[in-house]
Amino acid sequence: MPSCVWLLALSVAALTGNIVGAVVYEQTERNCSAFPPYLPSTAVNTTLQLQELRAQMLPMNIFAYIIPGTDAHLSEYIAPRDARMAFMTGFTGSAGTAVVTQTKAALWTDSRYWVQAERQLDCNWELEKDGSISSVAGWLISEVPQGGKIGFDPFLFSLKTQEDYSINFESSNRSLKSIPVNLVDQVWKDRPQLPPDSLTRLPDRVIQRSWQMKVEHIRSLMRDNPYEPTALLLSALDETAWLFNLRGNDIPYNPFFYSYTLLTMNEIWLFVHTDRVTEDLRVYLNTSCNGALCVQLKSYDSVLEHLKLYVAKPRVKVWIGIEYTNYALFEIITPQDKLMTSSYSPVLTTKAAKDETEQRILRDAHVRDAVAVIQLLMWLEKVVPEGKETELSAAEYVNQCRNKQKDSRGPSFETISASGPNAALAHYSPTEETNRRLTVDEMYLVDSGGQYLDGTTDITRTVHWGTPTEMQKEAFTRVLMGNIEISRTIFPSGTRGVNMEMLGRRALWEVGLNYGHGTGHGVGNYFGVHEWPVGFQSNNIPFREGMFTSIEPGYYKENDFGIRIEDVVVTVPANTKYGHNYLTFDTVSLVPYDRKLIDTSLLSSEQLQWLNKYYDTIQRLVGPELDKQGLQEEKDWMLKNTQPFPESESSASVSSSSLTLIMLAIALLHNII
Amino acid sequence: MPSCVWLLALSVAALTGNIVGAVVYEQTERNCSAFPPYLPSTAVNTTLQLQELRAQMLPMNIFAYIIPGTDAHLSEYIAPRDARMAFMTGFTGSAGTAVVTQTKAALWTDSRYWVQAERQLDCNWELEKDGSISSVAGWLISEVPQGGKIGFDPFLFSLKTQEDYSINFESSNRSLKSIPVNLVDQVWKDRPQLPPDSLTRLPDRVIQRSWQMKVEHIRSLMRDNPYEPTALLLSALDETAWLFNLRGNDIPYNPFFYSYTLLTMNEIWLFVHTDRVTEDLRVYLNTSCNGALCVQLKSYDSVLEHLKLYVAKPRVKVWIGIEYTNYALFEIITPQDKLMTSSYSPVLTTKAAKDETEQRILRDAHVRDAVAVIQLLMWLEKVVPEGKETELSAAEYVNQCRNKQKDSRGPSFETISASGPNAALAHYSPTEETNRRLTVDEMYLVDSGGQYLDGTTDITRTVHWGTPTEMQKEAFTRVLMGNIEISRTIFPSGTRGVNMEMLGRRALWEVGLNYGHGTGHGVGNYFGVHEWPVGFQSNNIPFREGMFTSIEPGYYKENDFGIRIEDVVVTVPANTKYGHNYLTFDTVSLVPYDRKLIDTSLLSSEQLQWLNKYYDTIQRLVGPELDKQGLQEEKDWMLKNTQPFPESESSASVSSSSLTLIMLAIALLHNII
Repeated sequence: MPSCVWLLALSVAALTGNIVGAVVYEQTERNCSAFPPYLPSTAVNTTLQLQELRAQMLPMNIFAYIIPGTDAHLSEYIAPRDARMAFMTGFTGSAGTAVVTQTKAALWTDSRYWVQAERQLDCNWELEKDGSISSVAGWLISEVPQGGKIGFDPFLFSLKTQEDYSINFESSNRSLKSIPVNLVDQVWKDRPQLPPDSLTRLPDRVIQRSWQMKVEHIRSLMRDNPYEPTALLLSALDETAWLFNLRGNDIPYNPFFYSYTLLTMNEIWLFVHTDRVTEDLRVYLNTSCNGALCVQLKSYDSVLEHLKLYVAKPRVKVWIGIEYTNYALFEIITPQDKLMTSSYSPVLTTKAAKDETEQRILRDAHVRDAVAVIQLLMWLEKVVPEGKETELSAAEYVNQCRNKQKDSRGPSFETISASGPNAALAHYSPTEETNRRLTVDEMYLVDSGGQYLDGTTDITRTVHWGTPTEMQKEAFTRVLMGNIEISRTIFPSGTRGVNMEMLGRRALWEVGLNYGHGTGHGVGNYFGVHEWPVGFQSNNIPFREGMFTSIEPGYYKENDFGIRIEDVVVTVPANTKYGHNYLTFDTVSLVPYDRKLIDTSLLSSEQLQWLNKYYDTIQRLVGPELDKQGLQEEKDWMLKNTQPFPESESSASVSSSSLTLIMLAIALLHNII
Repeated sequence: MPSCVWLLALSVAALTGNIVGAVVYEQTERNCSAFPPYLPSTAVNTTLQLQELRAQMLPMNIFAYIIPGTDAHLSEYIAPRDARMAFMTGFTGSAGTAVVTQTKAALWTDSRYWVQAERQLDCNWELEKDGSISSVAGWLISEVPQGGKIGFDPFLFSLKTQEDYSINFESSNRSLKSIPVNLVDQVWKDRPQLPPDSLTRLPDRVIQRSWQMKVEHIRSLMRDNPYEPTALLLSALDETAWLFNLRGNDIPYNPFFYSYTLLTMNEIWLFVHTDRVTEDLRVYLNTSCNGALCVQLKSYDSVLEHLKLYVAKPRVKVWIGIEYTNYALFEIITPQDKLMTSSYSPVLTTKAAKDETEQRILRDAHVRDAVAVIQLLMWLEKVVPEGKETELSAAEYVNQCRNKQKDSRGPSFETISASGPNAALAHYSPTEETNRRLTVDEMYLVDSGGQYLDGTTDITRTVHWGTPTEMQKEAFTRVLMGNIEISRTIFPSGTRGVNMEMLGRRALWEVGLNYGHGTGHGVGNYFGVHEWPVGFQSNNIPFREGMFTSIEPGYYKENDFGIRIEDVVVTVPANTKYGHNYLTFDTVSLVPYDRKLIDTSLLSSEQLQWLNKYYDTIQRLVGPELDKQGLQEEKDWMLKNTQPFPESESSASVSSSSLTLIMLAIALLHNII
């Protein structure tokens, strides 16, 4: 699925036509300038919680309170109990920041969510459309008097967020005030409980390195570091999960559990909700001993207290990755010579390149995942003309297909199943209100993924069951060209994705088209579907061998259609004529593209060759799996859709076939003369 | 010329063979581990100045003193009187940092200069090969005791340099100490004087906007800025020169003069050596009046004092660009709410996009410049086989050719004239010791440029007068493919160069080749040859219409040959099928490439078409200029070297010509049957 980046230009008109079951004449968005203000039934009355929050703010001596949409681990996806922004505002989108003063309340979110916000907010809230920190800060400077303080929960700010606000306030005579108790939690009476689920350990068959091996490796990185850290603090949820080969169930679609780890050369402190650690796990973690490879279980809520005690010791230095450490932890590591920072912890940079087992099983997961997606596409091809299927029923179908696959652990995110104009919203997921019927007259985009015990998948295909327009074919082909150009490029190990991602856009740029989201994100072994810091964003780390990332260019025509083609690839060594240490990408998503939408005359001969080789790989890898699962009809469908394209069809290389023709003509001439 | 970036992998063996006039058996590099140490005649005895500097350091209570290679304006090229690093170390390379303690002395410079450093340093100096600030800081941490202070001249540190050192020292218990008097100057008895030259104003024919118009425009940007700055401080030398349409002569090859400007809404303070401002210029600058468009001349050395007075006023806020403001100025702008920062001043970002007149005259300068380079290439082709010419004589010849062109103001940098292995050093300039004879057996690279009243030029061509190897042809062609791929790409206005520069490397990467320098830098109207912040580096600003930049991929084979192809291009609007606000590059350097080195079978049909179109442009623009200058032989040479390539020669598109052949064959068949 596409990662969160501002869409370049996207306003959203009310979607019309073809919607299943929506009341046709209800106005779906609020109108606060009407008298009396108009609120749709989807809007949430927030008067009470605002009143209560403002009462909490008064004794704190703050003029405003910032409510971010993240959790204490700076997670991209959060648990219901961390959805404080949604509780306060009514808005349930996955990205945003809310700010409350004694007289005003404002929500910032990006263009993906403007329509949704207008449907869910009541008239207590202003909607602000530039979600940058400088925009929030600018609003605060205009609302907060000189000398005024702006409160925030330090657990919900990264060090970088805190710095960005500070820089923006620098010359304004307003300042931030860290408030250790979350004020929203004080007024949130029905705040969801933690799920009671126990943590689970990964089975040995999906592991190459035991947690003890990982701990020893990370310790060696600490030992080799010239700044001589004595401890490493892990805050991101996938850091602790990776280190101990454990998974949990605290966040929908993400197999994580609330946790921190403090790792020193001779101790391991694991901060979790200890009642969720079973006796078996305690044995697995060696919790009853007292050595360098014995885990000391500590209560999740005691992390600040224990970190303070550790920092108070002489000659200690704590290593943190600043992108995923919250400000509450950062601010107690003083004086400065007790702190050592890098952008990402050594756990995240180690985890970024997969070991042999991880690579093998992640490829395997994609073979089974391809079976599920092929089942969906084949089924839709058959049933859509009957007119009964919708975005929601298609999403449901692909979930079922994945569930039948070995080691399935559910979807890796909410399926984006989008027909016609709905697909022009890059991050759309269908609801009862927006659900469209699938027809042969509209393009259809499905972006979905699965969690498997051995890997996380994420794939997008765009199809048309009728007759696409020339423009649709051209746009689809150029998106595909972008996907192929990145996939087939050869580059020195250590090249950054951000310096190559324009290859995904170039064929679109040539005709003045573009897309407004990122070009790809890391994926891993049964982790979050966006596994940073791998990918094509500017803050992603350089590529080295064994990294998995999605490649997902797209094109979105407002109120009309949306195209995205997404595959997961892995960096593999490339053999070059003169050089060493070059890499290229190997595609591990294995589902054919809609042939009807490919205008092969636009492809270069290199692109066409790449495509045929890819289709050959699908046949070679997915064919046996379909056989094994006894899916003959699916196999026939796959074989039909992966037939090689004649290479003479490409734009540039009339060469081989035309040369043959010339030979033929000359031969004929020769005979006759 | 290539901008300063670390060469990826380059060690330099002693160059052998073919060197003109060098004593063959003299060991050219120092050997400090020999007993007694061996020093070549080029090494400089620095014992005395080190002794004297150390004496200066003692009362300052510092354990080390940092000597950067820049000046108070953070200039890339400096005047002789600012060559403090060279005075202290003997090393005259253009990039480096020296550090002196009471017992040790060390120089950091990049791979371009390691050989030169080993020739010029005596054994008082360690040579350190990783020139990053973290490497210098690491060395300092190991040499300076806990709690020790490290002195520096705040005029020679940018804010960013100071911050980088501070971050590196953060947890080490060492710290920087700003020392306002430069300690090197205290011991530099023969420090060169300022040149007495007066400043000069540009003639009206090369100007669209008078200085008053520019001042009003910059004031409007200040007025529109939401942070409400009351003053703008200009520190980079090209900022003041641009604002007042003035030029000077303080730095070799760079038409700059020492200056600062403090601009408020109703005052203009110009800090210069006022004795160099003639009566005419005083009239031009309105120095005798007292309004918003009257310039108040202040002594160059009084900038700190006047800035202090200004900052002491109530309700003022000074805007600075942090990349080019030195730490001495920055540190007196307190408290923080009197400071406003951006990466670059609004003068630099405005200047980056040229106005219509600037674009027109900069293109014109490149037409005349092409005449000079064509003269050089034609002459070399004739005389090299006679065996009398050298790198130095070729450099001299091209300087003479440029001098004859209208409005010439000398070379824009020291010509890189490099044959065979010398060209493998990307920034080599010939000296008497290294000078090679030019022969038909070696490739030759010439990177040169001119200053003209209307523009600055910079162009590189690589040629072979004999028979190139297959590898040389392939590498040259792939470098050319890189140049073409960037030049012809279409991209949205606002795209950053750093996100496209891999197009310059991609054809090389495909076969495992690469180059270790940047891909291009801005150029302007009679300014420094590297005109930042335009270009392809990571800290360059996004491209918009009217920006000039070089494109200069290369390939360097150690001890063998070097290839670089450099052209200056300007961003122009691109017409696209569907979009608006797209740009592409138009090449304004107008000299053909060596045909002998182009393997057209490697080019795509698009690349070949681009090349033929470019050659047509050369004929169309340079032809009339050659006629005008009565240079018939040069015109014939140019026409011969810009003949179109048959389009059937490209790799991918046998298409058009082969289709013709097919038609022909079919037609023939038809007749016969």
